[in-house]
Amino acid sequence: MSFGFSNPFPSVAVLGPGLIGGSLVMAVRECMPGAEIRLWARRESPLQFAKERGLADLCTQSLGEAVQHVKLIVLATPTGTYSELGTKFVEYLDKDAIVTDVGSTKGNVHAGIGSFLKKQGHLFIGSHPMAGSEKQGIEHARPDLFKGAVVALTTDGSEDQIALDKLRSFWEQLGAAAIAMDPHSHDEIVAAISHVPHLMAALTARTAISPDIALSALGQMAATGFCDTTRVCSGSPELWTDILTQNAEAICPCLERSIADQRRVLQLLQEKNCRELQQWLAEAKRARESIC
Amino acid sequence: MSFGFSNPFPSVAVLGPGLIGGSLVMAVRECMPGAEIRLWARRESPLQFAKERGLADLCTQSLGEAVQHVKLIVLATPTGTYSELGTKFVEYLDKDAIVTDVGSTKGNVHAGIGSFLKKQGHLFIGSHPMAGSEKQGIEHARPDLFKGAVVALTTDGSEDQIALDKLRSFWEQLGAAAIAMDPHSHDEIVAAISHVPHLMAALTARTAISPDIALSALGQMAATGFCDTTRVCSGSPELWTDILTQNAEAICPCLERSIADQRRVLQLLQEKNCRELQQWLAEAKRARESIC
Repeated sequence: MSFGFSNPFPSVAVLGPGLIGGSLVMAVRECMPGAEIRLWARRESPLQFAKERGLADLCTQSLGEAVQHVKLIVLATPTGTYSELGTKFVEYLDKDAIVTDVGSTKGNVHAGIGSFLKKQGHLFIGSHPMAGSEKQGIEHARPDLFKGAVVALTTDGSEDQIALDKLRSFWEQLGAAAIAMDPHSHDEIVAAISHVPHLMAALTARTAISPDIALSALGQMAATGFCDTTRVCSGSPELWTDILTQNAEAICPCLERSIADQRRVLQLLQEKNCRELQQWLAEAKRARESIC
Repeated sequence: MSFGFSNPFPSVAVLGPGLIGGSLVMAVRECMPGAEIRLWARRESPLQFAKERGLADLCTQSLGEAVQHVKLIVLATPTGTYSELGTKFVEYLDKDAIVTDVGSTKGNVHAGIGSFLKKQGHLFIGSHPMAGSEKQGIEHARPDLFKGAVVALTTDGSEDQIALDKLRSFWEQLGAAAIAMDPHSHDEIVAAISHVPHLMAALTARTAISPDIALSALGQMAATGFCDTTRVCSGSPELWTDILTQNAEAICPCLERSIADQRRVLQLLQEKNCRELQQWLAEAKRARESIC
């Protein structure tokens, strides 16, 4: 084993053994030979899973053991738990350690643990890998989860450029493309391209069910269109409740716009206003094609 | 070439050379060797395309030539054109010919051409193959488009069982599974699993665009979730304006339910009511999983 020339972190601690945390230890093992990998979890069973497969050099339930002398700490638990973990591990942090995370919302994270760590003289930069799956847990982890993915790096402007470059290089070595932005812009963007689409997929699935139609008939007739449009709402309701409420401030205005727009299309249909309906659909097609 | 033992129709005329019509002549050629295939189009260019590739035995712009002595006539033009075509080809129809179509709505079709043909002593049974693509035109046609697809057969109760069995057998030979239902139920089901999802996909794409967010940032950050959720709204606005207005009666009540449900989830988010939001998402997940 040798330290990769451009490996910015000789040691990485991942706190949280879910799909993302598990994939991260696998990806580091594969893409950064020589890096020491530590995995922390609250519960024994995912650590056992990781141990049996040799996914990390150290699997531990002790936060102190997990972070001591480590240069990059990645929070991969639900964002609501960060502050509690931070107050527990901060005393073990090296001065030059960088703390990041993989959470889906960033305003709350910077206001919470980001601000707490800064006050303690530590560096926090947010990461949000735009990768995942409707599946959960370390048993669905994959070393290639981040290949080709975009990772948003969020900074509040106070971080030094060297730390940001190191973190960018870390994600790039895992095959991702990193883009830096401020936490507020991040939250507005993910509301538009992830959180609201999740709610709309859920709404579509819910709307399909009605007492007038046999469920079996819906099942027989549903083609790939329905199943693709609603796919994301198979994600964990618990996890998504967390994500959506954390980003409610950015999501609610989008939902209000969407309700108004839905009222409008309902009216166009009621009036059979073909000219404007076609324009409405053409604008949607253009919007999609300019994004995808 | 030999007549397949179970081939219920020695000759098939397809009126309309789009994606579905084109795929249909290709599928009949492949799955029913020996059947005579005629293709009618209003315009010369798709017929030229079909001729060059030998897709049909006769490519014609004459409705009389297309339907004379043919036992199965399939309307594959927009549903709004059926009546005009019907009044033109009815005088050339054999008494034992069956007329069907491939349109996405059925109440209007039975009330229109179905009722017209019945008055003239002819048989009409609706077909709706739940197959397609956001691509259009004979140049995207595929002989396997109907393999594994469900085809709804719509009858108003006056058709004879033998004709229905023959049409069912026709679709099954192309690899599809046929389900018979009445036109009203058909329209309610497709509203729920196709037309409303199309509108919701369009709404999701439209909602993502806002003056506050750079389009390039949305494009960089959008992952498969967004692109899958909105995929169907890449379909032709012109074609979908036709489909949606034809089925407005079934779609509008679904949209009203959906607006009310969206108001509810907005309120849950504003109140950060995690318990009920999680339940709302869990119901959506169950709804999807019971259909897909």
